[in-house]
Amino acid sequence: MKKTAILLVLLTAISTGALASEKLTLETQGHFAAGGITIQREGTYDNSKFAGWATPIEQGQSYRADHAIVSYQIPAKAKNAPLLFIHGYGGSGLCWEMTPDGREGFSTLMLRKHYPAYVIDLPGRGRAGKTSATTTVTPKADEMLWFDIWRLGEYPNYHNDVQFPKDAETLNQFFREMTPDLSAHNMKTDLAAISAAIDKTAAMTGRTLHAKDPAGVVLVTHSAGGFPGWLSAIGNSKVKAVASYEPGGYVFPEGEVPEPMPSLTGTASGVPVPMEQFKRLTEIPIVMYFGDYIPEEVTDKLGGENWRVRLQMARKFADAINRHGGNATLVELPKLGIKGNTHFLMSDLNNGQLADLFDAWLKGQKLDK
Amino acid sequence: MKKTAILLVLLTAISTGALASEKLTLETQGHFAAGGITIQREGTYDNSKFAGWATPIEQGQSYRADHAIVSYQIPAKAKNAPLLFIHGYGGSGLCWEMTPDGREGFSTLMLRKHYPAYVIDLPGRGRAGKTSATTTVTPKADEMLWFDIWRLGEYPNYHNDVQFPKDAETLNQFFREMTPDLSAHNMKTDLAAISAAIDKTAAMTGRTLHAKDPAGVVLVTHSAGGFPGWLSAIGNSKVKAVASYEPGGYVFPEGEVPEPMPSLTGTASGVPVPMEQFKRLTEIPIVMYFGDYIPEEVTDKLGGENWRVRLQMARKFADAINRHGGNATLVELPKLGIKGNTHFLMSDLNNGQLADLFDAWLKGQKLDK
Repeated sequence: MKKTAILLVLLTAISTGALASEKLTLETQGHFAAGGITIQREGTYDNSKFAGWATPIEQGQSYRADHAIVSYQIPAKAKNAPLLFIHGYGGSGLCWEMTPDGREGFSTLMLRKHYPAYVIDLPGRGRAGKTSATTTVTPKADEMLWFDIWRLGEYPNYHNDVQFPKDAETLNQFFREMTPDLSAHNMKTDLAAISAAIDKTAAMTGRTLHAKDPAGVVLVTHSAGGFPGWLSAIGNSKVKAVASYEPGGYVFPEGEVPEPMPSLTGTASGVPVPMEQFKRLTEIPIVMYFGDYIPEEVTDKLGGENWRVRLQMARKFADAINRHGGNATLVELPKLGIKGNTHFLMSDLNNGQLADLFDAWLKGQKLDK
Repeated sequence: MKKTAILLVLLTAISTGALASEKLTLETQGHFAAGGITIQREGTYDNSKFAGWATPIEQGQSYRADHAIVSYQIPAKAKNAPLLFIHGYGGSGLCWEMTPDGREGFSTLMLRKHYPAYVIDLPGRGRAGKTSATTTVTPKADEMLWFDIWRLGEYPNYHNDVQFPKDAETLNQFFREMTPDLSAHNMKTDLAAISAAIDKTAAMTGRTLHAKDPAGVVLVTHSAGGFPGWLSAIGNSKVKAVASYEPGGYVFPEGEVPEPMPSLTGTASGVPVPMEQFKRLTEIPIVMYFGDYIPEEVTDKLGGENWRVRLQMARKFADAINRHGGNATLVELPKLGIKGNTHFLMSDLNNGQLADLFDAWLKGQKLDK
């Protein structure tokens, strides 16, 4: 990471963000489905036959599935670059749209800075529940594991000075943001839906930054949403930049994949892609943000271990992009003096400061026009 | 229904609603979980043990479930009465927040009239996917049935002059609004979550209309959301009014339940409640809206049959409330000359006119301060 970039980002972040007491002015808002397939049963539908609500006669009928649902809001004085938010494992787009303690969510903070916000529920999650898979969902008590993995602390103890309120109701709201995944866990399904969402977002509000550029969008990804984010940028030229909050996976040029990195929670491995695909990531600005409580050395803590290897892989990923002529910035927040961030940085107590940081980066890339 | 009420409503509805080109100004927005239970496994969670992501060691861990998720937006110059929107069968709160052809959703139209909007995803649906039930979801091709039941027409033919665009993409978006139900289909679970949502909504923006009144909310229900809406009004005194779009079920005082009404799609039956509970529905203003293509006599059409008996039951429900001193209005839109409405009135092409009608009714009840 370039030192000048850090300084620029730091100085700009000190400027105050929008005050919560100011009005939020929108042009319009709504939702749309993006992508998906249509399952069509053979035969002809017979309008006169009814076999009960639970057991439809499927003959001749259809079932739409595997789409994403996108919630969008277009602010007044909208900037050219719409932000398309992609959530990670275990939840839906909710993580961008709320905080567990009732403050405004990250997408709202960016709306206040006049960036159009498009928030995805990926196929099978949240309101995009219709999938082509047959899935059984059952209560699996796992919240203490996530408390640890997502670096709130080591259950039941919170990290010192963590940017997460320690009251019971905040934790209650945080876990209720989670929602099951009804999909077949097929990366191609996610990518098809994301690409359709990119196309529609670009068509709605992505304006040209330069006369020669087509309309584009900025992907904003989190955690397990990070990996499909890289592939989406490779696969869809309308992606003009990617900002990723603690991405979980990475691609590398074939022949340049780092050694797998084992940890207590599994092995982090880079995924090889042909050089001409990887090159695409060198043609757009990329920024990654990582929070606190990530050790450099092997530990016996689940959360620390899980993100230790992913942060180390992120460093190699940024190096690979920059080595091939790209523009990747890895922001390790504690190194900027920004401490206490969990894995859910976007809804942490200092999410206003993080929104300022992101805005400053977008400005630095001239994506704020 | 009183003729004067019809006239008032008609005249006011002719006045133009907010223009889509006007800005939508909000104080703030966000989401919260309401209600639900916490499943707690016995024992002590051991932070050092990790058995893989898919198979957590549940010992000592918890799982929150059976809550609703509420999306809220508070407009500038907010009126006293927040609207709490409850969806019906087969979907989520999306039906209030979008239209399948990309116009603004009903909750946004009401926001433009300065009513705070709270939109529920009921337990097990949409973003409220964590439930205490074990549920298997599988693709069931049923869209042609819903085309008929929801009175778009008789598949593949649309009704003449239906208030639903006939292009393929609108129908595609419409069916992708649907999402599975992961709950155990337990009315008590829904009622508990709705009541918690009412309490939180009232606490956030429900202001007193009169010095003696506690803060309250207006329930706005649709279809299968109608029945829990009546029970919620009975069970929670913070409900100050109910507006229901084509409710599917009704309560009656014990001993006054009408004869069951058989139809091609099942028998509509009123549900008895003790008189002291029913009385509660006579203490608040109630309005119901029904759309077009609902016959008076028995037919062989699925959609017509399904709503014929429910409309007839609605007439008896309104009569029962008014007979006991209440204030219930049943608006049969075709009788006002408003034609072409499907079962999804709130997202039909004339939803602006329907929002005006609803606003006029709220004004008539002095709920617009």
